[in-house]
Amino acid sequence: MTAAAAGDVHEEMLNRRVILKRYVTGFPSEDDMEVVTGTARLAVPTGSTAVVLRNLYVSCDPYMRGRMTKHEDPTYVPDFVPGEVLTAFGVSKVVASGHPGFAVGDLVWGMTGWEEYTLVPNPALFFKINHPEIPLSYYTGVLGMPGMTAYVGLFHVAKPKKGEYVFVSAASGAVGQIVGQLAKLTGCYVVGSAGSDEKVNLLKTKFGFDEAFNYKKEADLNAALKRHFPEGIDIYFENVGGAMLDSVLLNMRLRGRIPVCGLISQYNLEQPEGPRNLFCVITKRLRMEGFIVTDHFGEYHKFEEEMAGYLKEGKITYIEDVAEGLEKAPAALIGLYTGRNVGKQLVKVANE
Amino acid sequence: MTAAAAGDVHEEMLNRRVILKRYVTGFPSEDDMEVVTGTARLAVPTGSTAVVLRNLYVSCDPYMRGRMTKHEDPTYVPDFVPGEVLTAFGVSKVVASGHPGFAVGDLVWGMTGWEEYTLVPNPALFFKINHPEIPLSYYTGVLGMPGMTAYVGLFHVAKPKKGEYVFVSAASGAVGQIVGQLAKLTGCYVVGSAGSDEKVNLLKTKFGFDEAFNYKKEADLNAALKRHFPEGIDIYFENVGGAMLDSVLLNMRLRGRIPVCGLISQYNLEQPEGPRNLFCVITKRLRMEGFIVTDHFGEYHKFEEEMAGYLKEGKITYIEDVAEGLEKAPAALIGLYTGRNVGKQLVKVANE
Repeated sequence: MTAAAAGDVHEEMLNRRVILKRYVTGFPSEDDMEVVTGTARLAVPTGSTAVVLRNLYVSCDPYMRGRMTKHEDPTYVPDFVPGEVLTAFGVSKVVASGHPGFAVGDLVWGMTGWEEYTLVPNPALFFKINHPEIPLSYYTGVLGMPGMTAYVGLFHVAKPKKGEYVFVSAASGAVGQIVGQLAKLTGCYVVGSAGSDEKVNLLKTKFGFDEAFNYKKEADLNAALKRHFPEGIDIYFENVGGAMLDSVLLNMRLRGRIPVCGLISQYNLEQPEGPRNLFCVITKRLRMEGFIVTDHFGEYHKFEEEMAGYLKEGKITYIEDVAEGLEKAPAALIGLYTGRNVGKQLVKVANE
Repeated sequence: MTAAAAGDVHEEMLNRRVILKRYVTGFPSEDDMEVVTGTARLAVPTGSTAVVLRNLYVSCDPYMRGRMTKHEDPTYVPDFVPGEVLTAFGVSKVVASGHPGFAVGDLVWGMTGWEEYTLVPNPALFFKINHPEIPLSYYTGVLGMPGMTAYVGLFHVAKPKKGEYVFVSAASGAVGQIVGQLAKLTGCYVVGSAGSDEKVNLLKTKFGFDEAFNYKKEADLNAALKRHFPEGIDIYFENVGGAMLDSVLLNMRLRGRIPVCGLISQYNLEQPEGPRNLFCVITKRLRMEGFIVTDHFGEYHKFEEEMAGYLKEGKITYIEDVAEGLEKAPAALIGLYTGRNVGKQLVKVANE
């Protein structure tokens, strides 16, 4: 038993944390969150299997908006609680452990808090990091939840074949950039959309997309898709919803697949926009299928090895947008919904 | 070679036919169609493989509305042509044949015209009727396109398991009544919705649904579904779209399936209503999948044997709504969109 696990008296550390101030309606603002300072003990309760984590990086992900609203019946992830710390995926170092599977000094990733130190009563859902030679922050993205989301949505749901036409929206984001590159590795023709010329340029020059366009500059999304996909789209990796989905439906090919990963254009609307062109689902025999990456976490270490290999071989490139310090976390999260981030948005909490 | 196939001079018969007068916008009216009288020769061109059919029954099916509008790019069925006869599935007797596979007197079903006699240049897509001991009109329904639609959508797309919760909209219609009964034979719990108390009563007393409700009497469809499915819905057989789909999405269970067969509530709207609750597709890992029965016609005779067996054993019950005479066909078709029909709508063209 380590000293930290013994439950002895330990120094109390200051613990800065980001809390939700109130449930959100419509577009969130920084003022809906607050950075406060509490304290943390670097020890676990005697006899428990808890761990204490020192958080190094925490993630900003679009799905977090849903947790800022109170749901009667949350389906896949609990709502945040006003006054309590926001939780999110992050990369952490174990600083105290009562759990036989985790030792002080271990590097892990999993659902932690937007704070400096987090007491995790049951760390069973954390993954140990097997490739610390790769930047640790990558475990909030390409080697973590978003990377595996891309992998699962593309290979388990869409099931691409060589030569197929793939369209990715929000294509420079945490998930989109990986989807496009995995589809290229599969031998597909890949086009992405993004919300700035800088992002479009990245897609073409850095991520190896065949083509890309700035959806904000297209007066007619249907025409833009017809221009880029004269033969139509076999797979649409759906990250945004709304008008883009409606135009995509018109441009799908027979037996096309639409893995539904996210609908970021809709998250801050009080009344979502439904796709009016749903009849195309019938006439084109389309399959739209939603998925949640956590259902597939049993395969994580297989994914980790495969993706770590692609990164080391230079087959997958990855871009992050790092906010420095927890104070910047609220603005970084909100920036996802205006498209301010370039690449995967995360927050650096502490030096490694 | 029969006399009819020899191309000799034959009597010209009067041939009443229903033509499309003009392309339709919004809700169709009887006046968009017209019953006219032409002539037909009961002979096929010398050397051709055509057949001439005497039509006995023709079908009224919801998808026909789509063909009354001009499409730039028809995806699965050609648009009707103003001034020309409407085409539809029907049951016919061969009265002249130049095709080695079809003899005078054969009973067939397939895509024929809303008219007394139809010259079919290539009858290869017609099916011979193997069970003339069953009412022939059933080949426009339970033993024809709608019956096979129910079968394919349920077994190939939704893939029900014993004990699952199945909801069918437009449940007393040509497809819905068969879907519900096949789901019951599979051991599912089945609830249907329909638009009158008479239809609801049929669902419960005649078709063996576990429960049914009149959607027109429900102020809150979400509440109605929660009442009938306290555990949620595993399979929603989608025939209607619109507000019902939106309420269903809220009530689906994890990994539910929605075979998308039709969206009849939307066919006469100039601006369709999109489902606003699409986010449920993600959170509940739903699969929505469109299908077209004609893709599966290669399996038709297998289906015919199975369904003929169920009918003879009394395991499947079937209700038709028969309009007598081609004059009644336009009103019968339009009645589908107001729910006037009770059971499968068809038109009797001639005595057998």
